Amino acid sequence: MNRIAVEKKVLNENQILAEQLRERYQQNGVLCVNLISSPGSGKTALLERTLERIDKSTRVAVLTGDLQTENDAKRLAKFGFPVKQITTGGTCHLDARMIERHLEDWKLEDLDLLIVENVGNLVCPSSYDLGEDAKIVLLSVTEGEDKPLKYPSIFFKSELMLLTKIDLLPYVPFKADDAKENARRVHPGMEIIDVSSTTGEGLDRWMEWLKLRQEKTRAKLQGVGL
Amino acid sequence: MNRIAVEKKVLNENQILAEQLRERYQQNGVLCVNLISSPGSGKTALLERTLERIDKSTRVAVLTGDLQTENDAKRLAKFGFPVKQITTGGTCHLDARMIERHLEDWKLEDLDLLIVENVGNLVCPSSYDLGEDAKIVLLSVTEGEDKPLKYPSIFFKSELMLLTKIDLLPYVPFKADDAKENARRVHPGMEIIDVSSTTGEGLDRWMEWLKLRQEKTRAKLQGVGL
Repeated sequence: MNRIAVEKKVLNENQILAEQLRERYQQNGVLCVNLISSPGSGKTALLERTLERIDKSTRVAVLTGDLQTENDAKRLAKFGFPVKQITTGGTCHLDARMIERHLEDWKLEDLDLLIVENVGNLVCPSSYDLGEDAKIVLLSVTEGEDKPLKYPSIFFKSELMLLTKIDLLPYVPFKADDAKENARRVHPGMEIIDVSSTTGEGLDRWMEWLKLRQEKTRAKLQGVGL
Repeated sequence: MNRIAVEKKVLNENQILAEQLRERYQQNGVLCVNLISSPGSGKTALLERTLERIDKSTRVAVLTGDLQTENDAKRLAKFGFPVKQITTGGTCHLDARMIERHLEDWKLEDLDLLIVENVGNLVCPSSYDLGEDAKIVLLSVTEGEDKPLKYPSIFFKSELMLLTKIDLLPYVPFKADDAKENARRVHPGMEIIDVSSTTGEGLDRWMEWLKLRQEKTRAKLQGVGL
């Protein structure tokens, strides 16, 4: 078997597992979101602010991926929600099998929201469905405005783009309008929210987005039950 | 053949090609460096400043990798040196075959310095030898101090770390000393240079590093010729 055939087989197997996960999330009314970005775009900082602000009645859990270290799980554990680190070794993305394995001792019926923080990488995670309801891509204003054109796949597949670190806009040459135009050139009509985990700007809109998506998930569950 | 066996075969084939490239660089007295970082850590900006400052007698060429777009090649072409874009499609790294193919119509004997700008990715490029003399990893102060611990392979394999965007230090919570300590925990004694492509700080040291490495390459060539 050549390399492409093997890659295809791996992706097919992943897809089957991802569909099973998706079905389990739906049956249990769990909203699952998959956060993807370059290393250092602020996924973990955004998660800290999110866990701080989230309605305490929301039963949320986090799976956070990295090649090495438990640092992110430690940062996130202090908010009192269940958090697990997935260390991938050398692997450049999370896959559905890793998610399934790490969910083993959590009961999905006890959850409303599962947040997956992928390995920092704009390329590989875009090929691996984790059964999530939505991929969310983060782009920070310290990167280039042309990232959506250079890494189109992940911007095309993500439902929402969070433009992060907007508090740094006065100090960097980043043109936010150009970045958004580039994102929407790859993904017409893409929803974009500007946020700063430092000043808190835009976080209300992000929390509102999450809440609306949870309501949609719950509505679907009730629809299924009819 | 299973996936790991295929991966191993691909890496072995890459290694053979990389050794051939290395030999060709040595025979022609070409210093080849391979710049690796997250997307948006400032590889292209650093290259712009480097091409601006480089001694005009140095015959330099650039190969710049991205998934899509010719943007970087366009940015770099205006300095009057030969530049080629390698667009990888979906592939998350450059490999030795891509380098070999893009070198076909350049004569190595007409070059002193070949700079390769890898695809923005802290994971995959670390597994692919391109026959370079040195890998150089860039880490920007807008990322996290713990990146070297989370992505140890590339920090271990790189000879030099450039800490970029240091002009932004007053506006971010980044602790430069911690980042350097982490890098040296993974790679004891690692050389680190602080730079800002915006203010120019540290660029003299970086240009000096490049110059010394070129002298070393030339000295080796003369040694071979004796």
